[in-house]
Amino acid sequence: MTGTKKHGSITYLPDSPVYITSRASLGGSEEKAGKLASLLDISSEDDYFGEDTWEKAETAIVRMLVDQLYKSAQTTPESTDLFLGGDLQKQCMATSLGLLPYGVPYLGLYGACSTFAEGLALASLAIDGGFASSAGVVATSHFCTAEREYRTPLVYGNQRQPTAQRTVTGGGAILLSKDAPKDRAAPHITAFAIGKMRDLGIKDASNMGAAMAPAAFETISTFLEDTRQTPEDFDLIVSGDLGNVGHRIVSRLAEAAGIDFGGRYDDCGRMVFDPSQDTHAGASGCGCSAMVLTASLLRRMEEGKIKRLLFAGTGALLSATSLLQGESIPGICHAVAIEI
Amino acid sequence: MTGTKKHGSITYLPDSPVYITSRASLGGSEEKAGKLASLLDISSEDDYFGEDTWEKAETAIVRMLVDQLYKSAQTTPESTDLFLGGDLQKQCMATSLGLLPYGVPYLGLYGACSTFAEGLALASLAIDGGFASSAGVVATSHFCTAEREYRTPLVYGNQRQPTAQRTVTGGGAILLSKDAPKDRAAPHITAFAIGKMRDLGIKDASNMGAAMAPAAFETISTFLEDTRQTPEDFDLIVSGDLGNVGHRIVSRLAEAAGIDFGGRYDDCGRMVFDPSQDTHAGASGCGCSAMVLTASLLRRMEEGKIKRLLFAGTGALLSATSLLQGESIPGICHAVAIEI
Repeated sequence: MTGTKKHGSITYLPDSPVYITSRASLGGSEEKAGKLASLLDISSEDDYFGEDTWEKAETAIVRMLVDQLYKSAQTTPESTDLFLGGDLQKQCMATSLGLLPYGVPYLGLYGACSTFAEGLALASLAIDGGFASSAGVVATSHFCTAEREYRTPLVYGNQRQPTAQRTVTGGGAILLSKDAPKDRAAPHITAFAIGKMRDLGIKDASNMGAAMAPAAFETISTFLEDTRQTPEDFDLIVSGDLGNVGHRIVSRLAEAAGIDFGGRYDDCGRMVFDPSQDTHAGASGCGCSAMVLTASLLRRMEEGKIKRLLFAGTGALLSATSLLQGESIPGICHAVAIEI
Repeated sequence: MTGTKKHGSITYLPDSPVYITSRASLGGSEEKAGKLASLLDISSEDDYFGEDTWEKAETAIVRMLVDQLYKSAQTTPESTDLFLGGDLQKQCMATSLGLLPYGVPYLGLYGACSTFAEGLALASLAIDGGFASSAGVVATSHFCTAEREYRTPLVYGNQRQPTAQRTVTGGGAILLSKDAPKDRAAPHITAFAIGKMRDLGIKDASNMGAAMAPAAFETISTFLEDTRQTPEDFDLIVSGDLGNVGHRIVSRLAEAAGIDFGGRYDDCGRMVFDPSQDTHAGASGCGCSAMVLTASLLRRMEEGKIKRLLFAGTGALLSATSLLQGESIPGICHAVAIEI
């Protein structure tokens, strides 16, 4: 049997749950000093991770995550049918170069900060559809590669705006399988929704939370509608990385639409840095939601503290060139429901 | 029933064929002067396509392709469950901005010039797996955006090398459906293979054919092995855009491996420009294989001239930054079998 999706809906229900059999998380110096400090599998004071450029550091991050993933799963890349992933560098080079040594069939994704959710959705589809028994997903970002890619090189010493989010140096990786682990309960994906782009007309790369908020709200509310559920059916609904600004907008959009989150809604961009770190509106980047999910949320599920999670990864679709040419920043959001 | 894939293989056989119900092709001034001239659905002498930047021109290309696709299919975007696509611009902006107005659930891909094949494979998986009844795929490139993205800005007046390929200005789009059209025979996807990255150690952005050739040969030969077929089972095996250099390498690798293509092997990069156009090693770019498939190959299938096609899209994984930092250019190749 294949999974099902009603015509006109955006939500897919796999025929069988797709199990998360291994997870790995990594953070850099600023992440190590933040809220997730004690939860990260790997962290470093050195944001170069022993390399001589930031881009090579991000390639190293991908490899450390994948090594940790297989170590933790006590298996090898040969058992994986497919790896999906992406990052924020132009042409997604950290992921390509990072995954190169493992020799696993590979599909590159670009969903900006929604990439990890996009990967989880496609990996679930690949497993439920019979393409893969086991699939890996990885997403990373690096504050220093992202600043020079999207805004200004760090050496320029740009003053950050109050609405700006700080790109996470780090990321997360997950192994998914059609089979449940034999020795323990494992979180499993029971549904996913693929979102539509929404454009609020924001043209400021330092206000991505606002740019992504309408897409986040639409995907979350459509998912609830498609599955005839309410926020009460979840212990936590978490958006990708809207930060404080976008989180406030989604909360207000929900209020206006008569949806009561009842204190169950949070955002990955608010769960990384401590206010004392002065990172303004919070965290962002492909690596942000990937790191928060793998370091904190899945751990809390394994510990029985969260039983039903809606993970809604959000992406701001921009490039330095598109902004210079006057384009606005459309947002997108894909949601994945995880249960244990 | 879901499709099947043997463990250890890279090849997926959908449970039911996935039908190509509509196709659209577009080329710019140089493409219009080449071999596909009379076959393109849309072409223009103006490589700006009425816009004031090359990047905006590429966004316009995406929209012209999608408009043509729905016009030709006599349907609307509301009937499409999912759109997949990508391009060569950093952060894949042509595709995001291009697809924005249609409001279809969207997944961005980055597979360099293998993007169209990656999209066809994932769309087939989404349809066979029950996520979508109908899915769209688009891939584009633009000579002028790609030169400044990967090599040097055009105004620099760089001398092109003999091994260099010319990025296609243009692209292709396809609508796929689980249902066959009622009024005619339609080409349909019967299998696809997701390839692994292979690295020959090439560090020259003007020699991408060589960089991609090992991956192309590996995916084609593994696909044949996985499905217990020989080149004789196909009327044509066509690689993505290896151009003359990569085509020669794949031919020699096949010879060395005892695989006899028997004149059935060609490459999309050799099927766009006329030798008189002096484009050196041929054509390349996300838009190259997308344009050749939609303008020429599928047409020849509809006309009964090709019955079984193996379309092997190839990608060279590089960025201007990765090259400046001394990285080599891994290649990747995904194959899609199409029959009528």
